[in-house]
Amino acid sequence: MRIGILGNGQLARMLALAGKPLGLDFTLYDPNPDGCANLLGEFVQAEFTDLEQLQAFTASVDRVTLENENIPETTLHSIPQEKLFPPAIAVSKSQDRLVEKQFLQQLDIPVAEYYPLESETDLLAALERQQAPLIVKTRKLGYDGRGQVQVSTREQAIAAWRELHHAQLIAEAKLIFEREISLIAVRSHSGEIRCYPITENTHHQGILHTAIVQQADPIQDLAEEYGKRVLTELHYVGVLGFEFFQVGDKLLGNEIAPRVHNTGHWSIDGAEISQFENHLRAVLGWPLGSTRAHSPSIMCNIIGRFPDKAELAAIEAAHVHDYQKAAKPLRKIGHVTLCSRDVRVLQDSYQRVHALVRD
Amino acid sequence: MRIGILGNGQLARMLALAGKPLGLDFTLYDPNPDGCANLLGEFVQAEFTDLEQLQAFTASVDRVTLENENIPETTLHSIPQEKLFPPAIAVSKSQDRLVEKQFLQQLDIPVAEYYPLESETDLLAALERQQAPLIVKTRKLGYDGRGQVQVSTREQAIAAWRELHHAQLIAEAKLIFEREISLIAVRSHSGEIRCYPITENTHHQGILHTAIVQQADPIQDLAEEYGKRVLTELHYVGVLGFEFFQVGDKLLGNEIAPRVHNTGHWSIDGAEISQFENHLRAVLGWPLGSTRAHSPSIMCNIIGRFPDKAELAAIEAAHVHDYQKAAKPLRKIGHVTLCSRDVRVLQDSYQRVHALVRD
Repeated sequence: MRIGILGNGQLARMLALAGKPLGLDFTLYDPNPDGCANLLGEFVQAEFTDLEQLQAFTASVDRVTLENENIPETTLHSIPQEKLFPPAIAVSKSQDRLVEKQFLQQLDIPVAEYYPLESETDLLAALERQQAPLIVKTRKLGYDGRGQVQVSTREQAIAAWRELHHAQLIAEAKLIFEREISLIAVRSHSGEIRCYPITENTHHQGILHTAIVQQADPIQDLAEEYGKRVLTELHYVGVLGFEFFQVGDKLLGNEIAPRVHNTGHWSIDGAEISQFENHLRAVLGWPLGSTRAHSPSIMCNIIGRFPDKAELAAIEAAHVHDYQKAAKPLRKIGHVTLCSRDVRVLQDSYQRVHALVRD
Repeated sequence: MRIGILGNGQLARMLALAGKPLGLDFTLYDPNPDGCANLLGEFVQAEFTDLEQLQAFTASVDRVTLENENIPETTLHSIPQEKLFPPAIAVSKSQDRLVEKQFLQQLDIPVAEYYPLESETDLLAALERQQAPLIVKTRKLGYDGRGQVQVSTREQAIAAWRELHHAQLIAEAKLIFEREISLIAVRSHSGEIRCYPITENTHHQGILHTAIVQQADPIQDLAEEYGKRVLTELHYVGVLGFEFFQVGDKLLGNEIAPRVHNTGHWSIDGAEISQFENHLRAVLGWPLGSTRAHSPSIMCNIIGRFPDKAELAAIEAAHVHDYQKAAKPLRKIGHVTLCSRDVRVLQDSYQRVHALVRD
């Protein structure tokens, strides 16, 4: 059984590493030759818009999935839909922040206040109306805090408009929230849904820094309720990441990602079955595996440069993941997961990792 | 960092799968082109006796290790010893059952009674002296029960001699033992030793069938004491598997394997750090990782033919490992590990796996 993956970054790499023990083969498709999964399968270097190459790729594999939601819609629709998981419709919902917010609202999932922007005037009016800071974001192709500017004054708004207005924009109210959490959920062909314990996430310079697994969290049920609405509505198959802001006992939906998700990487080492294996199980039409955490777990991203690996390995309970990507400022090049049933070990190890991975 | 592995079977495959997340690259060296790890690294197809190819291979990697103890001694000695882990001496101790038994005895580790055989007369004399069944074994190259014949009578002894005498032979007393256990131990460059919880092993047609992890077993300490004597004496670096027969509160050493071991496969899914990662850490000169089991675990080999994988995946707590080897009677082609902190789940899943993997 051969799985085709659109994209060739660390998510494709971890999918392939989870799939090899299951006896799967992989073909990676990406315009960029410097991906980090191509040693784990066949590699096709071609543009996503090259429909001829895409057709040959699709014909050569049993299923197609993706590690990147920014695949052009025409690409997704050119793939036989019975081979593509998750479905194209789910991917397109997440490609545009405006469409995404409207979709969540249709499902009665609260979101932060937002304003579609067609002009500088729209932005100034939104700022006036909100009477509080806004975050101006590109509707498409933003990630890791890129394509986002916070504005509190008319001057900042005018500058932000000038900087970003070449793209379609949206302004969102900047929330005062207790915490950001995310839910990793997976749905099978048969409609079974399983959810991992939520993580609490912290960011640094707009990039996910740590995801701490929250076992038996009181807000888990609400997050799962919202996640299930999304998966069911989209007839989704595979893993979906869903980020929320928690305000009091409310959750506001922030983003859905139609793929395995950085806040689920802990599951490789800390869950009974990882998000990567469960995504593949769903794509293959197999039964889903347990999403339970076997140990309390914390994941820390490695950003920019890799610390000495032997030093990381010396930290009790540390699982080192090096994506073998070239070091570059603000680039995610690996992660460390700490898993231990001994909370003191976990805390002590967390401090030691934190000291080593600081950029 | 590139690791060269002599051999290209499932052990090499699982080493490579454990090493990719650590950012390692692999070169596999094997005369057989049909190995199951070569998609995970560079592959050199050459005889172990081809010293020219071997030299090029050795020069192209940072460290050399092995997945198979039956590598010719001249091959091992042709590799710069500062690159080779475990050391050649450790491998040669395990290649000959007579040398192995004498070595264990030197370390005051009890073994079953044994008789080196130079002639049919020796065998008949041994049978006379033992007054009980003997197992006649080839001293070298036996595995999975091959090259072994049990004899209880003069007629059987004569037949066994005829069948096997082209090779050097040893006769061992057939033991009445409570159970077979094995210890997986790992030693680092710095001399640190860590041991996994022992497993209790069962066999079927001479081939390992299941390994059940025994947590806090009263015989653990004695097994570790013997394991440490072996590792220390050999200045060993890497993982070593050590099989014992338990008779009352005594352990008799049966076999040492200078490599990752089938009875340690459960550690991929059930231990904090797997035997494969710990072997690589040792080979690299890194600190060792935790050998604790995070969950009670049972490993079942898949022999001969692969059951339906979706059916296996449906079993709660099952981790499916398909080595992608061609199906063949009596061939190990995969394993399933069950890990769960819920003992009822573990027992129920074990019965379900057992029903599916029966050959």
